[in-house]
Amino acid sequence: MTLTPNTSNEPSAAVLLIGDELLSGRTQDTNLAYTAKFLSAYGIDVREARIVPDLEAEIVAALNTLRARYTYVFTTGGIGPTHDDITTDAVGRAFGVAVHYHPEALALLEPRYKPGEFNTMRRRMARIPEGASLIHNSVSVAPGFQIGNVFVLAGIPMIMRAMLEDVGPRLSRGTLVTTATIAAHVGEGRIATALSEIQNARPSVAIGSYPMFSEAGPIVHLVVRGRDPEGVEITARAIEEALARDGITSTRVVG
Amino acid sequence: MTLTPNTSNEPSAAVLLIGDELLSGRTQDTNLAYTAKFLSAYGIDVREARIVPDLEAEIVAALNTLRARYTYVFTTGGIGPTHDDITTDAVGRAFGVAVHYHPEALALLEPRYKPGEFNTMRRRMARIPEGASLIHNSVSVAPGFQIGNVFVLAGIPMIMRAMLEDVGPRLSRGTLVTTATIAAHVGEGRIATALSEIQNARPSVAIGSYPMFSEAGPIVHLVVRGRDPEGVEITARAIEEALARDGITSTRVVG
Repeated sequence: MTLTPNTSNEPSAAVLLIGDELLSGRTQDTNLAYTAKFLSAYGIDVREARIVPDLEAEIVAALNTLRARYTYVFTTGGIGPTHDDITTDAVGRAFGVAVHYHPEALALLEPRYKPGEFNTMRRRMARIPEGASLIHNSVSVAPGFQIGNVFVLAGIPMIMRAMLEDVGPRLSRGTLVTTATIAAHVGEGRIATALSEIQNARPSVAIGSYPMFSEAGPIVHLVVRGRDPEGVEITARAIEEALARDGITSTRVVG
Repeated sequence: MTLTPNTSNEPSAAVLLIGDELLSGRTQDTNLAYTAKFLSAYGIDVREARIVPDLEAEIVAALNTLRARYTYVFTTGGIGPTHDDITTDAVGRAFGVAVHYHPEALALLEPRYKPGEFNTMRRRMARIPEGASLIHNSVSVAPGFQIGNVFVLAGIPMIMRAMLEDVGPRLSRGTLVTTATIAAHVGEGRIATALSEIQNARPSVAIGSYPMFSEAGPIVHLVVRGRDPEGVEITARAIEEALARDGITSTRVVG
């Protein structure tokens, strides 16, 4: 049960994570979850994510699919100075535009290097597709860029997060999602019938059931999400009452 | 620079992570990286991953794209007893087959419950698409299943990992990838030209450059991957020699 159908008027987003290291298991991605939480403060749902290797054709195909489908696309990775950083050219290709040295990006980068050290490869970080605007970050100076509805961000989490701060003011806001989380020491199968009935009674909210194990036995987190705070609260109370009727103690999880 | 082109004869895999909680940022996925490392022991590369919400149409579309494109697809999530567990039906739909109660799955699950507690919702975990074979796990007993080249696994990491153990013997093996990792205290931009030349000289290996920050300044990990161990070692030494020529000390990272 997903919150917002694709037909919703709320702004939507997709995240495109780029890099061989994510698919080999070498690097554990954290950018998707961070971006999702960042966007939730704008009422924007991440509705899909894809992880592709450092292959231009793969980046182009995924980006063109996603940017046609969602209000915004956020890419991470592949905008550094080395040979395996191919995202900028792939984005240019996806949009059918040339990639040029960007005067402002050159002006940002050049003073960071000693005379003679701003070499050809480092200058690659100032190459930006035609028509794009820069995305600044306070950590590395090297910019990301926005072209159309696509935001091209660094892969290093600290830099990616700084870039999101620069992106925030450019985003349309949607209706905020309210979340209520209920924790109970019970196997989810025992309460599944009640949950299903409560969900069916209020299709405008989404109830997620997330089971875990603990030494004290099974735990389930029941997460109610919706854009109508009253509907979320009524649903959360209905769940708590159903649990209580079954003799199950529950607690609200805050934050 | 990605290791194996799509035209390779080596077996390939995609991972399809299913669940609203991954896209909201509530849950930090770890199943992709684990699966990638598990498959690397079989010489199988994960070449793409997608994360979709709990929406049948999204699961069906992603699964049908991925299963046509890669040797194997591994899905995680959505096979529990609650209303938001819709993966099994979506997989049945994707394959155009009916979903039935599976006698062996029922026989596994029923003894786990007290009389009368094996309710309709819990029985949902015994529903398996026609033609699928079960994937066992020692943690929860509730099975996953294999249908064609698709392995449908639980989302809870402990259970997903146990299921992979049951899947392993069913997989074709590819040529193992050898990796050499070199760490150096240097900004990647300074060595990017040399790296690019070394990469161009040996297209059968992939050199990845992964910069990090530390209090002692920039660090880069240079990762050489390839299916020809000698080519990987020659390339790693070429990188070490290039670093040394530039007065940069490097160390091999083991493991």
